[in-house]
Amino acid sequence: MSEFTSARRRYVVLAPHALTSRAAKMAHGVIAYSSDSVVAVVDPDHAGKRVRDVLPYLSSEAPIVASLDEGLLLAPTSLLVGIAPAGGKLPDDFREAIRGALRARLEVVSGLHVMLGDDEEFAALAREHDTRIWDLRLPPAAPLFSGAAWDVSAKIVLTVGSDAAVGKMTAALELLRAARDRGVDAAFVPTGQIGIAIAGWGTAIDRVVADFAPGAAEQLVLEGERRARDLLFLEGQGGINNPAFAPVTLALLFGGAPDALVLVHNVSRDRIEDYDVPVLSYRALIRTYEGLCATVKPARVVGIALNTRDCDDNEARAQIERARSETGLPCDDVVRNGPHALYDAIAPALVKTEVLHA
Amino acid sequence: MSEFTSARRRYVVLAPHALTSRAAKMAHGVIAYSSDSVVAVVDPDHAGKRVRDVLPYLSSEAPIVASLDEGLLLAPTSLLVGIAPAGGKLPDDFREAIRGALRARLEVVSGLHVMLGDDEEFAALAREHDTRIWDLRLPPAAPLFSGAAWDVSAKIVLTVGSDAAVGKMTAALELLRAARDRGVDAAFVPTGQIGIAIAGWGTAIDRVVADFAPGAAEQLVLEGERRARDLLFLEGQGGINNPAFAPVTLALLFGGAPDALVLVHNVSRDRIEDYDVPVLSYRALIRTYEGLCATVKPARVVGIALNTRDCDDNEARAQIERARSETGLPCDDVVRNGPHALYDAIAPALVKTEVLHA
Repeated sequence: MSEFTSARRRYVVLAPHALTSRAAKMAHGVIAYSSDSVVAVVDPDHAGKRVRDVLPYLSSEAPIVASLDEGLLLAPTSLLVGIAPAGGKLPDDFREAIRGALRARLEVVSGLHVMLGDDEEFAALAREHDTRIWDLRLPPAAPLFSGAAWDVSAKIVLTVGSDAAVGKMTAALELLRAARDRGVDAAFVPTGQIGIAIAGWGTAIDRVVADFAPGAAEQLVLEGERRARDLLFLEGQGGINNPAFAPVTLALLFGGAPDALVLVHNVSRDRIEDYDVPVLSYRALIRTYEGLCATVKPARVVGIALNTRDCDDNEARAQIERARSETGLPCDDVVRNGPHALYDAIAPALVKTEVLHA
Repeated sequence: MSEFTSARRRYVVLAPHALTSRAAKMAHGVIAYSSDSVVAVVDPDHAGKRVRDVLPYLSSEAPIVASLDEGLLLAPTSLLVGIAPAGGKLPDDFREAIRGALRARLEVVSGLHVMLGDDEEFAALAREHDTRIWDLRLPPAAPLFSGAAWDVSAKIVLTVGSDAAVGKMTAALELLRAARDRGVDAAFVPTGQIGIAIAGWGTAIDRVVADFAPGAAEQLVLEGERRARDLLFLEGQGGINNPAFAPVTLALLFGGAPDALVLVHNVSRDRIEDYDVPVLSYRALIRTYEGLCATVKPARVVGIALNTRDCDDNEARAQIERARSETGLPCDDVVRNGPHALYDAIAPALVKTEVLHA
C-alpha cells in the first residue's frame, strides 16, 4: 500500500479554475479532513479570498492565491495536485506548476492515474532538487485474495454508495470521528487517492490489476486491524450499478470482508454520473448489496448516510425522513447534522457490547 | 488488445508433470480448439504416448515427449507455456525450456501473469536469436467504459459461470461452432489468456487495471462487431460469488453489455475453488446475474451449459434433467452431446428472425 512517512505537511493545493467544482474533490477532502495543513490554494478565479469565502462548509481560513509563486511565500513543504478528473490525466497547464514546485524543493503529491514519478522530466527534476514525488495511486504488488480478511476480529464497516462521488469517504471519516469521541479504538481504511492523502496510507483499489483488487482490499483490512482493535471504517468506491466502477465496488465488498454496510446517497443524484443509467432506489440498493454479501460473507446495511448538500433545511429533513420510512433504517446527513446521532443509532450493530459500554 | 499475426503456428506445448492436471487448461484449450497445430507436448510422465491416450476427450494424435529437445525434432514454430497456475507465476523448471526455445528461434507464447517479455534474460535471448515473446495477458491501454457497447447491433451472448474454470470458454466456442454450422455470421470474443491463444486476439480482462476493466471489455465487443455481423459469443470469466475473481466477472457483465447470458456449471463443483464458499443454486445464480444486468442493461439467462465431464452417462442425463426442471430453461452438456441441440433451443432468443431463417 502507498505510505510516505513525513513530518506534518504544509500544502499548497493546485486547483486552477476548479476550486469550487466537483473536479476538485481531492482539494476539498484534504482541506476538510487531513491532519496536514493547507497554507494556500492556487486558483486565480478566486485569488485574494479565503477558502471559507467560496466554500463555506469547509470552514478553512487558507488563502487563495493566483499562482504557485505566491503560494511559495507561505513556506509550504508540499504541492498537492488538487483535482481528480475522470480518467486521471494530467492537464497540460499543471506541468509548469509541478516543475516550479520541484525546483523549489517541494514534495509533489498526486492522485492522478498517470504516475508523475514515471514522467522523465519530473523524475529528473526531483532528483536534481533532492525532493520526491508521491503518486498516491501507485499500487503495491498485491496477492490474490486469501480469505484471511474473514478472520479479522475488529468489526469492518464498509460505506457503499448509490454511485461514485456521493460521499462514501466523508461518511466513513465522520463516523470514525464519532466512534473515537465515544472511546472506541477505530481506524479509517483508505481505498482511494483522496483517502490516502488524508490518512497517509492505503491503496487506490481502482488502480490495482483486476485479478488482485480483492487481495489488495484484504491487505488493507489486515493492516487496519494492526492500527485499531475495535472498528474499521473501510472507504467504499464507485457504486454497484456504475458500469465503469462497479468492479472496484465489488472488490471491496468481497475482498474487504465487511461485517456491516452503511449506504451513502446524494439525494440530488438520480442518474449514474456520466451514464444514462438510473440510480437505484434505497430498497433496490439494499437488496443488491446485501444479496451479494450473502453469497460470500453476510453483511447487512445498518444505516444510511445521506448527502443533502444541495438541499435547504426543510428539504434535507424531508429527504432524511423519506429514507427512514422507506427502509426502516437509521438515517442522517452526517455533515449537516454531525455524525453522532447516526453513529449512536448504528453502534449496537457494529461494536461489541463490552466496548460500547466501556 | 493482444494480437500477433502469424502464419499458422506449430506448437510445442510445455506441460511437464502436469498434462493431465487442471493446471494444464491452457494446453487442453489450445489442443482442443486452436486452428494452430500442436506438434508435440512435453511431459516426461507420459512420454511415448499420444495426447488421446491420456486425455481421450481431446482426440489429438500429438505425441508426448520427454523434453523440449525431442519436440524440436518436429519442426515447431512456437513454444506454448501450457499451464496457467493461480497467481500466474513462472515455475523455475520452465526457465531452462524457455531459454532453449528462444535459442532455437521459436516464438514463446505465455499466458502467465508474469510477463516473460519483461524478463531481462528472456528479452535478450529473443533479440539475440531474432525471435519474439507473445505475452497473451499483456493488456492494452484501455479507456474508461463509454457506453458505446450498448449500441453494438450484433447480439452479444456472455457465458457466466457458477465459478472459475467450469467451462465458460468451452461453452462459448462450442456454441459458436453450432451458430456457424447454421449459417450465422458469428465470432468468439476472447477475454482470457487461453481464449486469446486459441483465437489469436483478445484482452485478458483479469490483467487490466480495475478502473479500466469494463472499458477493455467494451473495446472487445466493438472489435467483435467488426469481425461478425450477427452474433458475438463473449467469453465469461470467474463467477459472481468467487471472492477473488467476481470483479472481473462484473467487468464483463457491465462492460461487455450482453443481450443474453448462458449459465455454465460443472455439476461436480459444490464449493468455490480455493475458498470455503458454497456454489450458488441455479436459481440463485440466475437471480443474481439477471438482477445485476437489470440495473444497467437487462439480459436474461437463456440456457444452461452443464459440464458433466466427471459423470457417467446416466448421471449426466439426470443432472441435465434436474437443471431443466429447476429452471425451466434449455440445458445440455455441449461437449458430451454436441452444441447443436442447445444452440437450436436458444437461437430464437439470440438471433434476429431473418438470420435464423436465412
